[in-house]
Amino acid sequence: MARQQRAIRTRRIFLEAAAEVFDEHGYDAATIAAILDRAGLTRGALYFHFTSKEELARGVLQEAVTSDGVSPQIFKLQEWIDIALLLAYRLPREPLLSASIRLSVDPRARGLFGTRWPDWITLGTEILTEAKERGELLPHVDPGATSRLFVGAWTGVQLITESMPEPPDLVGEISALLELILPNNAVPGVLARLDTSPHRPERILEENRTAAAS
Amino acid sequence: MARQQRAIRTRRIFLEAAAEVFDEHGYDAATIAAILDRAGLTRGALYFHFTSKEELARGVLQEAVTSDGVSPQIFKLQEWIDIALLLAYRLPREPLLSASIRLSVDPRARGLFGTRWPDWITLGTEILTEAKERGELLPHVDPGATSRLFVGAWTGVQLITESMPEPPDLVGEISALLELILPNNAVPGVLARLDTSPHRPERILEENRTAAAS
Repeated sequence: MARQQRAIRTRRIFLEAAAEVFDEHGYDAATIAAILDRAGLTRGALYFHFTSKEELARGVLQEAVTSDGVSPQIFKLQEWIDIALLLAYRLPREPLLSASIRLSVDPRARGLFGTRWPDWITLGTEILTEAKERGELLPHVDPGATSRLFVGAWTGVQLITESMPEPPDLVGEISALLELILPNNAVPGVLARLDTSPHRPERILEENRTAAAS
Repeated sequence: MARQQRAIRTRRIFLEAAAEVFDEHGYDAATIAAILDRAGLTRGALYFHFTSKEELARGVLQEAVTSDGVSPQIFKLQEWIDIALLLAYRLPREPLLSASIRLSVDPRARGLFGTRWPDWITLGTEILTEAKERGELLPHVDPGATSRLFVGAWTGVQLITESMPEPPDLVGEISALLELILPNNAVPGVLARLDTSPHRPERILEENRTAAAS
């Protein structure tokens, strides 16, 4: 493995270890020792990439806004839906994503590092603006306001879902949230052709795997 | 003032002081000394009502689910809207309410005390079930699922709103959230007669004052 590739991989191991520790204990209670222990690498390797816990938190937040895996669709609204559903699918499986929410929700960490919510809102606003230009949205829809409300709603639904004694599947909850709001946003001809099924993330990932293999 | 009334008032002063300190510093960093300082009362008075910081947190959460100020309306859906709007109006003004959200969002405090989200979901489900029996809701609406998603959405919209550098008015945001989801829940004849205006909380409180004065 080339030196550069190894460095990228090592950096990623530290970010994921930090994310797991932030996720389990919160930012304040997380220690460098616990992160090293989780990563199973040396202190020297850590300090080559990150000089402090603060830098690790910033690195975790840096990774958190992603539309990875979402490919162009006939309707821009479908891309917006795909980002929301894929994130719901990935969040319980990827500590980097759940730690990023935990850091944003924690008022102290938020004071230190800010949140990625503005970036999510911007991403959604861009997609919805293009959807509107293409005539997919009803005339009254304000892309910026809808994106902002949806990022809030998505975050709160995730929080409440994970707090339940027997948490329902997050993808199912986000799918239901989309069905609650889409009828008042999409024009009827588009609405009927959107796929908000909770099974969509698995289908998207399967298609991506097939495309990568061919 | 009768002894019992004084005791109720003192208890309330301690709860509000604790709420302010939890709200500003979080549960872990809050100290009994800071709470006493804020309340301006003696340690003896505190221990008459609350023996620990834990008990104060439980007391704060106890106060947090309230439909105070909401009076019966022609449509049950309007009562549901009124609770959501009034809470949005009161939250930035009442530390007991904002501290309750902060305690629920903090994973450590949540582990110790649970949250009041299940009670909010139950309250909403009861009102929406009655709305459905009265024919106010579209046939596909599931009152339990809608209530659960809405409590999540409300909470997340509040979190993101308060995290913004220049926070928009929470009542306006919740009003917009209601307008986003009501068209897919209310039958058209009812929908047209619902009031989701951001000015509604002030009107409700004014009506209550007039009623109390007469």
